[in-house]
Amino acid sequence: MKLEIRRLDAATEGFAEQLDALLAWESVSDQRVQSAVDEIVEQVRLHKDAALIEYTNRFDRRQVVAGVELVIEHDRLEQAAKSIPTQLLEALEQAKERITRYHQRQAQTSWQYTEEDGTVLGQQITPLDRVGVYVPGGKAAYPSSVLMNVLPAKVAGVKEIVMVVPTPDGFVNELVLAAAHVSGVDRVVTVGGAQAVAALAYGTETVPKVDKIVGPGNIFVATAKKKVFGIVGIDMIAGPSEILVVCDGKTDPDWIAMDLFSQAEHDEDAQSILICPDEVYLDQVKAAMERLIEPQSRKDIIKTSLEGRAAFIKVADMAQAMEVANLVAAEHLELSVDEPEQYLPQIRHAGAIFMGRHTPEALGDYCAGPNHVLPTSGTARFSSPLGVYDFQKRSSIIYCSADGASELAKIASPLARGESLEAHAMSAEYRIKS
Amino acid sequence: MKLEIRRLDAATEGFAEQLDALLAWESVSDQRVQSAVDEIVEQVRLHKDAALIEYTNRFDRRQVVAGVELVIEHDRLEQAAKSIPTQLLEALEQAKERITRYHQRQAQTSWQYTEEDGTVLGQQITPLDRVGVYVPGGKAAYPSSVLMNVLPAKVAGVKEIVMVVPTPDGFVNELVLAAAHVSGVDRVVTVGGAQAVAALAYGTETVPKVDKIVGPGNIFVATAKKKVFGIVGIDMIAGPSEILVVCDGKTDPDWIAMDLFSQAEHDEDAQSILICPDEVYLDQVKAAMERLIEPQSRKDIIKTSLEGRAAFIKVADMAQAMEVANLVAAEHLELSVDEPEQYLPQIRHAGAIFMGRHTPEALGDYCAGPNHVLPTSGTARFSSPLGVYDFQKRSSIIYCSADGASELAKIASPLARGESLEAHAMSAEYRIKS
Repeated sequence: MKLEIRRLDAATEGFAEQLDALLAWESVSDQRVQSAVDEIVEQVRLHKDAALIEYTNRFDRRQVVAGVELVIEHDRLEQAAKSIPTQLLEALEQAKERITRYHQRQAQTSWQYTEEDGTVLGQQITPLDRVGVYVPGGKAAYPSSVLMNVLPAKVAGVKEIVMVVPTPDGFVNELVLAAAHVSGVDRVVTVGGAQAVAALAYGTETVPKVDKIVGPGNIFVATAKKKVFGIVGIDMIAGPSEILVVCDGKTDPDWIAMDLFSQAEHDEDAQSILICPDEVYLDQVKAAMERLIEPQSRKDIIKTSLEGRAAFIKVADMAQAMEVANLVAAEHLELSVDEPEQYLPQIRHAGAIFMGRHTPEALGDYCAGPNHVLPTSGTARFSSPLGVYDFQKRSSIIYCSADGASELAKIASPLARGESLEAHAMSAEYRIKS
Repeated sequence: MKLEIRRLDAATEGFAEQLDALLAWESVSDQRVQSAVDEIVEQVRLHKDAALIEYTNRFDRRQVVAGVELVIEHDRLEQAAKSIPTQLLEALEQAKERITRYHQRQAQTSWQYTEEDGTVLGQQITPLDRVGVYVPGGKAAYPSSVLMNVLPAKVAGVKEIVMVVPTPDGFVNELVLAAAHVSGVDRVVTVGGAQAVAALAYGTETVPKVDKIVGPGNIFVATAKKKVFGIVGIDMIAGPSEILVVCDGKTDPDWIAMDLFSQAEHDEDAQSILICPDEVYLDQVKAAMERLIEPQSRKDIIKTSLEGRAAFIKVADMAQAMEVANLVAAEHLELSVDEPEQYLPQIRHAGAIFMGRHTPEALGDYCAGPNHVLPTSGTARFSSPLGVYDFQKRSSIIYCSADGASELAKIASPLARGESLEAHAMSAEYRIKS
């Protein structure tokens, strides 16, 4: 199958603008979506289960009468885990073990130090009490997302994890329930959309109010999450997934072709970019793609994604490749090169870095250990993979000795008066030793 | 001066609802504010300096013609530092030193580990490239905020810090400029409001586009920050400041009265809550407040704040005090008690914990070391003080050895096929050793 894939050359004038245009993505909720979400969130806030059930019946074509019908009990989750093929259950459990082991390294611990005068300063780390995990339902139901969102919260010590997953027409995904069982979700409620987000943010009779909502969703879910941000915590609003593969031209072109496909098959907006200093190699990868796409079960999505958003970028050398990689700030950065570790110090922005020819993104998506929830659309410039730190919080600790307070008050007092905050100054001055 | 302060008793029926009502605060941007902000942000995005200058002239009553007039040069900052009283400059420098020392403990470092088969997993830490710090202008201009927002970014290694501060009617606050000089701000631009936030998020000829915007502001600033969240990172949207003082009834009532005043004097919406098991002591503090308020320069604000939002809460014992403290999840929690460290393990939610009778909030506001930018309105349930971690980000590192990839692919492949992602499966399977 012929594929039309955009070609850029970093040496040409106007490349920066071409790259900007290639990467441009602003997920805007239109006014219709915003109004619908405003209404749904407000109704669920006011009428709780009654509104939640009404929206669920309407949007998911269900006939729920009482909130209890929305809850999936523990033994049903266990049953799902027993019902799936043994190989799959084992894969889930192996993935769980590896993800847990990696994330344990992220756990922060409390610390404090004592100054000469006896003043103690520190930081106390505590887990969030209760977390909501949104899991999309229907055709794009990903058990791996359950593991990746739930396990960092478990490692952090979150006491209660509530999972919401819509079941359109009552269709339940057994793999998703099995993943919920394997990862230790406490409560599953079969609701989705903006109504599920509102229920988690404000609480209903059936859905307990949580402290933070994580997990991917469609534009209604994303808009609702942004709306309730501040009432509860949220993770990043994800844009379409993307990969940037930097190759030195020495990896089997079939491997690179398939790595790019694995990104493109997500959805039509997914973005796959290949950077290489070798023009001939880019042609070889293109040829491999045109040959390998035919038998792909998702070839239509792959073709649309590649022709709409992919690009092959020719660079002068690896130094220029790293410059472009930093401009892209990719969610997934694959360094399919010899001795990839030499480039690490030059990489300023990337969600996850897949190093060497034997590290395709797919391994990271499922089981290498690091999280697959990563900053998209260049947000790696300022944000990080989902991690244990997202489910922990810090409290500053300040204990002033009488001597310490007396000295600190002499600094605080003039500053407070400089800001015309007299009570601040006097509160400090009371602690100055006479 | 008589003060009417709300009294609650944790033992009475309906206390939970009373507490909820006391704490209720949802900062809602009304439609007028939202529309104004939408318009301003869009204009600045499209027309850059031209729009920024127009809004600045209109809202701050200035006559700026060219963008260059908005920039305050380095030597002007230095001049401000030289112009303020020596005692104040020294206090700023001492505060800087203590804040920097504390925050250095927060810096995260990269790590990695190697598995038996040679696979390497890790996390690379990098600073943000460029950060914008919003500093309010006019009467509520706080040099301490400059230190608290800028210094963690400096410790993180942020290369460029852009400060925006409005100068209504051209009024420049020398203390704020001095604090910018002391803390090492790279560029100061005299703009404010939603237009300043938009300029930082999208970039103009005069204001460089940043990766994250931090710092407090009015409802227009907060609404604009929430709007550009996702294009850039932002810190939390702050509500009114609050303090919860837990006292065992043995601290000088004057001290507690002044500690409560120091919160109440911020603004009319600020909240001061005192919890004590001793009813008589609550009366003593009340009497002290009525005596001490008279000479306060901000007594009108203090009175409005206390009568509108303060509360004295009688509890049965310290255990109940800790329960209430966790429900409040206060921005500032003062434990004015003997051996305060015994209560730390019971505190699940608090922005900062001020321990002992010699640790009033005011010392933490200026110079103890920890940050004074703290989660308000109960958001300590899921968020943390501003810190070095807010200016660092993480990239996952995955390097699979050939052996490691082969084994991981055997886990990833069935999971990918379970999700109907065939290209993911094949991308992994290519790495299985035959």
